[in-house]
Amino acid sequence: MPSSAPGPTAPAPAFDDAPIGVFDSGFGGLTVARELAKALPRESIVYLGDSARCPYGPRTLQEVDGFVQQIGGWLVDRGVKMVVIACNTATAAGLAHAQRTFPVPVIGVVEPGARAAAHATRNNRVGVVATKATVESNAYTKAIRHLDAGITVFSTATPRFVEIAEQGIRMAEGPLENYTSLASKVYIRPAFEEIAREYLEPLRRAGVDTLVLGCTHFPLLKALIGGVMGREVTLISSSTEAARDVAEILARRSAYARADHEARYEFYTTGDDLEEFRGFGSRVFREPIDTVAHVDLV
Amino acid sequence: MPSSAPGPTAPAPAFDDAPIGVFDSGFGGLTVARELAKALPRESIVYLGDSARCPYGPRTLQEVDGFVQQIGGWLVDRGVKMVVIACNTATAAGLAHAQRTFPVPVIGVVEPGARAAAHATRNNRVGVVATKATVESNAYTKAIRHLDAGITVFSTATPRFVEIAEQGIRMAEGPLENYTSLASKVYIRPAFEEIAREYLEPLRRAGVDTLVLGCTHFPLLKALIGGVMGREVTLISSSTEAARDVAEILARRSAYARADHEARYEFYTTGDDLEEFRGFGSRVFREPIDTVAHVDLV
Repeated sequence: MPSSAPGPTAPAPAFDDAPIGVFDSGFGGLTVARELAKALPRESIVYLGDSARCPYGPRTLQEVDGFVQQIGGWLVDRGVKMVVIACNTATAAGLAHAQRTFPVPVIGVVEPGARAAAHATRNNRVGVVATKATVESNAYTKAIRHLDAGITVFSTATPRFVEIAEQGIRMAEGPLENYTSLASKVYIRPAFEEIAREYLEPLRRAGVDTLVLGCTHFPLLKALIGGVMGREVTLISSSTEAARDVAEILARRSAYARADHEARYEFYTTGDDLEEFRGFGSRVFREPIDTVAHVDLV
Repeated sequence: MPSSAPGPTAPAPAFDDAPIGVFDSGFGGLTVARELAKALPRESIVYLGDSARCPYGPRTLQEVDGFVQQIGGWLVDRGVKMVVIACNTATAAGLAHAQRTFPVPVIGVVEPGARAAAHATRNNRVGVVATKATVESNAYTKAIRHLDAGITVFSTATPRFVEIAEQGIRMAEGPLENYTSLASKVYIRPAFEEIAREYLEPLRRAGVDTLVLGCTHFPLLKALIGGVMGREVTLISSSTEAARDVAEILARRSAYARADHEARYEFYTTGDDLEEFRGFGSRVFREPIDTVAHVDLV
């Protein structure tokens, strides 16, 4: 047995109104925040988008690990009861370190998505679409095969999906004020479909029956990806699954917000264009983001 | 990407009335079967207790892996839609191999229990009680720290708990016909409490706030173990958690039994004393086991 000193055994609080901390390199993590808001409408959320240093993909894992430590610390200082690393690259780079550092539970998006896929596949052939960095980290393959050694994982880097999702959001018609009616509308240009077909063809040929959307941007492209893969393929959203895990952790720790607690959403960005974040973010979050504050971490 | 040939992508069946296969070296796995029957009352179960070769603990992992292959194959031949390895030693020895071998999902009891503990702990100090073989395999420590690298795991081998559970079941008063009234009554002798205190003292001193019952026999001792650990310590039953995982897998695959399906429970043992299995097993399963059939695997 380890010889470290025992910590205090605090009795379980029945409720905890503190917010959940969520962060990403930019907007993608807002799909996780959206799923949280849907599944846990009483929970407050503090969201930070590290737009100033976006994207994380091309950076070294060590550098991104440093960002995770810094942002996690900032969220913990703001009194969050949990931290969700809503970015696959940051999860691969810094999850374990963050779990060892911070006094609150920290989860990433990889394990929840991997677990859902391992449970869902019927033919033991699971596909993963993700950024190049995530595919190269092998994080999903390892996590899925850790749960079920009988599953073959087929991973494909689909770097342009981030750009397509962002373009599609920008091109969605109508003024920002109408964002709720645009809820699931990401504009799909024919050119986007061609790109998707090319990316996804190897996974179709491989006969996967389950496909993990291994980037928090990709749930925005569910219609596009699902259309190409066909209805018999189950799409797994890491964002939805991460929100489910948050719910389970809060339930197990009796740490839900009170029944009469009014959820508050706070948005921060390290970037300078607050109006851009507000407008674009509202469409991803599917609720009006009234104010965004700049935070200087860099 | 792997180059193996694509498998057929079968459309998801809406329902599947096939039974769930459950096995253990003896009676312990009946706590898993009991939790399954409680959580999923429409599901049929085929249970095999490998009493002729019980206990698995002192055997080599290679030998136990062979048993898992043999029993898993027997269950698959009986048409089960899933296999639950309801034994920690057998999970450590043969889960991955079984997942690679059998055409149906195979789960063990370690990962579900580890996951529940990682989600439940508030002070990041988790205890595990298990047989010597399970503790030495480090299976729980690895599984818990894979999910949350910030958790310290304190494991203690409690070999006599199996014997105490079985003695306590035998000593429970009243005729077998009254087993339902004995449902949660495992007779606790004062000597049992002394043994439990001695085993659990290091975990109490370590300040764990969550304790995994890492052997399928141990849920029978929940009252004894909980009494010694105190109410502020959350007890995690691997049996309950494994049943939850089965439910999730069936839900994700649309493989539940039909709403009007009448569950059938079949019990088999490799041992010779069918009456002993029937009487003792009924008390663990908490439902009358009408017939037990001998099966010759050895």
